[in-house]
Amino acid sequence: MTAEFVPSYSKPARNRRVLLVKRPNGVPLAEDFAIDEAAVPSPQEGQLLVRTLYLSVDPAQRGWASAASNYSTPVPLNTPMRALAVGVITASRVPGFAPGEFIYGWLGWQDYAVIAPDQIMTRIAAPILPLSAYAGIAGMNGVTAYLALKKLGQPVAGETVLVSTAAGAVGSVAGQLAHAIRCKTIGLAGQDAKVERCLARFGYDHAVNYKSQDIGEAIEKLAPEGIDVFFDNVGGTTLDTVLRHMRPAGRVIQCGTASVTQWSPPPPGLRNEREILTRRLIWSGFVIFDHLGAFQDTATKLAGMVRDGDLTYDEDIEAGIEAAPDALRRVYAGENIGKKLIWIGEDSP
Amino acid sequence: MTAEFVPSYSKPARNRRVLLVKRPNGVPLAEDFAIDEAAVPSPQEGQLLVRTLYLSVDPAQRGWASAASNYSTPVPLNTPMRALAVGVITASRVPGFAPGEFIYGWLGWQDYAVIAPDQIMTRIAAPILPLSAYAGIAGMNGVTAYLALKKLGQPVAGETVLVSTAAGAVGSVAGQLAHAIRCKTIGLAGQDAKVERCLARFGYDHAVNYKSQDIGEAIEKLAPEGIDVFFDNVGGTTLDTVLRHMRPAGRVIQCGTASVTQWSPPPPGLRNEREILTRRLIWSGFVIFDHLGAFQDTATKLAGMVRDGDLTYDEDIEAGIEAAPDALRRVYAGENIGKKLIWIGEDSP
Repeated sequence: MTAEFVPSYSKPARNRRVLLVKRPNGVPLAEDFAIDEAAVPSPQEGQLLVRTLYLSVDPAQRGWASAASNYSTPVPLNTPMRALAVGVITASRVPGFAPGEFIYGWLGWQDYAVIAPDQIMTRIAAPILPLSAYAGIAGMNGVTAYLALKKLGQPVAGETVLVSTAAGAVGSVAGQLAHAIRCKTIGLAGQDAKVERCLARFGYDHAVNYKSQDIGEAIEKLAPEGIDVFFDNVGGTTLDTVLRHMRPAGRVIQCGTASVTQWSPPPPGLRNEREILTRRLIWSGFVIFDHLGAFQDTATKLAGMVRDGDLTYDEDIEAGIEAAPDALRRVYAGENIGKKLIWIGEDSP
Repeated sequence: MTAEFVPSYSKPARNRRVLLVKRPNGVPLAEDFAIDEAAVPSPQEGQLLVRTLYLSVDPAQRGWASAASNYSTPVPLNTPMRALAVGVITASRVPGFAPGEFIYGWLGWQDYAVIAPDQIMTRIAAPILPLSAYAGIAGMNGVTAYLALKKLGQPVAGETVLVSTAAGAVGSVAGQLAHAIRCKTIGLAGQDAKVERCLARFGYDHAVNYKSQDIGEAIEKLAPEGIDVFFDNVGGTTLDTVLRHMRPAGRVIQCGTASVTQWSPPPPGLRNEREILTRRLIWSGFVIFDHLGAFQDTATKLAGMVRDGDLTYDEDIEAGIEAAPDALRRVYAGENIGKKLIWIGEDSP
C-alpha cells in the first residue's frame, strides 16, 4: 500500500544547486538566482545526506530572500535558496535514521542536502499519500492553515469565514476546515478558474473574483451580517476593505501579505486602528515556526483526512531544477493552480 | 468615615441641559452644544430621578457625538450630551433604591436625569473615596485600564509595557498596574509637566515627551529589547512607530485613537500588516461596554487599591455646567492634567 506512493528516482553524481546570487527587489526573479554544480557533500557524525525529490515553492520565500527585517535571517547570498522539500535519506550517520526513509524538511533548492535531524519537519516512514502531498497539504501549507485557523481564528459553527487566496495551498485548506465545522465560507481568488475550483472542489459557499468584482459590495451582498474570521494571505487594499466589513469581536489572521510586493519603505494604506478599536477585532500574525512542536502531529492528522476523503488539494508540479529560478515570479503572478512544486527526482536529460 | 466624602449639593428647581445641537466635525467644540433649561423630569414606575454632581469628560465622547459608524449609536441632535456622571438619587420608583444613594452611570450632561437601574454602572452605597474618584479611577477610566491591560495585554513580570497618554485618566492607571506586577514601564506624554508626573507619581521607569523627542529613538535607547505590551490610547504616527519596535509575540491594546481627530474619510498611514505578521503581534480593540458584567467588582477593587495607597490619580475639576461645552476641546488640546470632571452640584450664581 505504501509502495504505490514511492516514486523511482535517480542518484546523480553531482549536486546541482539553485543559488541566491542577488538580493531581490520585491518578488525574487529568475535573474536573482544561478544554478551551479558541486560535489555531492558528505555527512559528518550526526548528519544525514538527503536526495531531494520535490522542491517546495512558497510565497514566504520572498521574505526569506529579502534583507528586510523579518522573522528569519536573510538567506546568505551565493548559497542554495532556503526551501522546504521532500527527499529521501541516502546516507545516515544518525542512529535511528536509515537510508530509504522519506523526510520533509529544510533541504533547500538543490539535489542533495546534508542536514541535522532538527532540520526535518516530518518523518514519512510509511507514505499514505503521494509524496508530493507531504510538501503541501500535509506539509507547511496545510499545517499553517490548520493551526492558524484553530489557534488564532477559533471559528465556531454558524460564523462567517472569509479566505483570501482561497484556492491556494494554504487558503484551500483553511476554507475546507472552516466548512467542515459548518461555518459559512467565502473565498477570494484572482481568476474565474480559481473561483470555480473554490466552489466545485473546496466547499466554499461563495467565491468572488476580486479582480472583476468589488470586494466590499460582494461582502455586503453575500454576508450582510459581516465577517467573523478573515484568514488573510494577501494584505493590502483587500485587507483594508475587509477590515471595514468585520463583525464586532471578529478575528483577523495575518498569514501572508502576498499582494504587497515591496515593504521597504512601507507603502501607505488606510489607517485601520479605529476599525480595530470600534469593532473590537483581534488581529494576529501567524508564523509556522512558532508552532513546530505541533507540526508532525498536525501533518499526520491532515494526511489522514486526505486519505479518508475529508480534504482535497490541487498541485501544480513542474519537472526539472531549471524551473526553480522563475518559480516564485510565477506564483506571485498567480500562474499556478494549487500547490507549486518542482520534481527533481530524475537526472537532467 | 463615609460622611467625609459626601459633599453638600443643591437641588435646583429647573434642569439645565447641555444639548448636542450640531454634528461635530472631528473634536466636539463649544459651538456644537447649547445649554437650555427644562422642567425637572418625573420618574415613572421603574425609574429613578438622579441629581447629577460630577460630569465626566471623556475622549470617547467624540465618537459618541459622531455620526460615523461606531460601537454605539450617535447621540441624537438636540438631546443632552451622552455622558457618565456621579449623582445622587433624589426620587425612586424602583424597589431597593432609596433617595440619598450615590450612583455612577449614564446621566448625561444635565442637572437631573431620569434613568432605569440598568443605566447605573456602579452603586456607591458607602463612599470610601471622594465621590469624584468614582467617575475616574474607580469609574470607566480605571476599569478600562484594568480590564484592557489584564485581559488583552496580559503582561507578566519582566516584560516591557509602553503606555501612551501615560499621565492621563486611563494611561496613568495602566502604567501603575503594570509597574505593580514588576514590568518595566515607559510612558509617552505630550508635555514636560506630564512627563514629570509619570515619573514622580505613577511609577514609570521612563517617560518620554513625544513632542520634543523622537519616539523610535527613545524606545531604542530605553528599551533596546523592544516592547512587549503597548497600551495605546492615541493611534496615528505614534502607533506606526511603536509597531516597528514591538517584540515578537507582543500585544497591542487599542484603547483609544485620540491623536487622529477625523476618521471620515479614513486618513492614510503606513501599512502595518507586515509588522503584525513578522512579529506575530496580537492587536486587539478594547471597548468597556463588552465588559459590563465585570464593572462593579473591578470598580470596587480599584477603589480599595486607592484607599490602601496602591494607586494614585490626578483630577482636573472645573465648576459649573457652563464649562461643559468647551471641555472636550480642552481635553483634546491636552490642557487638563488628570481626569477631567465638571462639578455641577451647586446652583449657578
